[in-house]
Amino acid sequence: MTQRVYAVTGVASGIGAELARILKEQGHRVIGFDIHRTQANLDHFIALDLNDPGSIAAAAAQLDEPLDGLCNNAGLPPRAGLEETILQVNFLGTRAFTRALLDRLRPGGSVVNMASRAGQQWRENTAQVKRLAALNAGDDLRAFIARENIDATRCYNLTKEAIILWTIAETEALLGRDLRMNTLSPGGVSTGIFGDFQRAFGEAVDRNVQRAGRAGKPEEIAQIAAFVLSPESNWLKGADIAIDGGMGAFNLADALDLHDIR
Amino acid sequence: MTQRVYAVTGVASGIGAELARILKEQGHRVIGFDIHRTQANLDHFIALDLNDPGSIAAAAAQLDEPLDGLCNNAGLPPRAGLEETILQVNFLGTRAFTRALLDRLRPGGSVVNMASRAGQQWRENTAQVKRLAALNAGDDLRAFIARENIDATRCYNLTKEAIILWTIAETEALLGRDLRMNTLSPGGVSTGIFGDFQRAFGEAVDRNVQRAGRAGKPEEIAQIAAFVLSPESNWLKGADIAIDGGMGAFNLADALDLHDIR
Repeated sequence: MTQRVYAVTGVASGIGAELARILKEQGHRVIGFDIHRTQANLDHFIALDLNDPGSIAAAAAQLDEPLDGLCNNAGLPPRAGLEETILQVNFLGTRAFTRALLDRLRPGGSVVNMASRAGQQWRENTAQVKRLAALNAGDDLRAFIARENIDATRCYNLTKEAIILWTIAETEALLGRDLRMNTLSPGGVSTGIFGDFQRAFGEAVDRNVQRAGRAGKPEEIAQIAAFVLSPESNWLKGADIAIDGGMGAFNLADALDLHDIR
Repeated sequence: MTQRVYAVTGVASGIGAELARILKEQGHRVIGFDIHRTQANLDHFIALDLNDPGSIAAAAAQLDEPLDGLCNNAGLPPRAGLEETILQVNFLGTRAFTRALLDRLRPGGSVVNMASRAGQQWRENTAQVKRLAALNAGDDLRAFIARENIDATRCYNLTKEAIILWTIAETEALLGRDLRMNTLSPGGVSTGIFGDFQRAFGEAVDRNVQRAGRAGKPEEIAQIAAFVLSPESNWLKGADIAIDGGMGAFNLADALDLHDIR
């Protein structure tokens, strides 16, 4: 088989750690990025703080080999007090890091961005996403949060809507470089930040998990990320894939009263 | 590796033929169904006319082994004169065939239903889908078509909306059997029926293909079908995956004016 080279952010835990393990098992070379140092299942580790433009530039500069793919998996959960950092890490920093790495991606390269079930209201929130996306490094995020009057949960959802809409918006331009981006939207995954989602989204989280039978496992999301990174999925471009054990379907069946369609 | 057993409908040509080839290459056993006889890449062929309830029952009765997955790929294109057959083959017959095979599916089994980019307006057309889904074998489809005042193109789109909504509606009940269904929504694929889509949908088809650089290849859809059939995708349940080389993204970027989100 062909050995490929993949970069994974947020590689020290959760979905990112499982993705590194799977890509190594498949025989690939894996370069991991995280704010927390790790060597597990990595060929090379590079420190990256997506909240710090200087760190983003330094991490990109340390990467000295061509890539076949990048998984932007690093992200912060909805947690009060982290509002600015959520906007920066989950969207603005991720976008800046991707821009910095674009020239390292070989033709045919695949970028997989981790979105969320919590970002599914992007159609309704396009205007607010555009205002967020218009911000640049150094702009005052505290002023943006005050103007928009948004809490940590809304900041989180907004960044996930933004990553979906940005992926859609970039798709046509990336074709010219023979590159593609897609988003994955997991829901209810049993990682270390599951408690944050329970606190932010209330009993709906537990109800969804109960209906699905259990929470998703990080490896179940990572298996799909590995496939979307691979050339076997090459006609997937600008798509968002819900990976939620049926939670989205249950809620749609309720909302649209589909129970007679059998 | 584990050899699994997969059933594929519409296996004589296009995406179905490519899926059989890929599954055989992966070492699996493939049982093919089609109205046209073929032996290519099959362990066993069973004749199936989804327009004929008797043929559906007979084909299901001939299948005498447990399955790990079923790909409902057979379908007719939008073509004037085929209105009733489109409704029957693409949705009502496919649903009946799936029901007949459900007891053959082993726990963990995966059903992949071929939808279409043309079925993406399912939210707007839920009421009409419910009226179609309420029909049973033997009901007068000509009367339904007259009542709804729909042409062949609308019949086609309606069946693809129906397959998406039916998949969503069945997801929770199927969990109880440890089974799952998902839909794939290709757009602009270079199969033998591509001309039908050009005639039905006009210049939008050629414009989308031009922006994407080319039409999709049947094998590019089949590769993703093979993955969604496999246990590696087991947390995908009730999801619809657009496989269109970016065509959906281009159109969303235009419609939502996303070109500033860069």
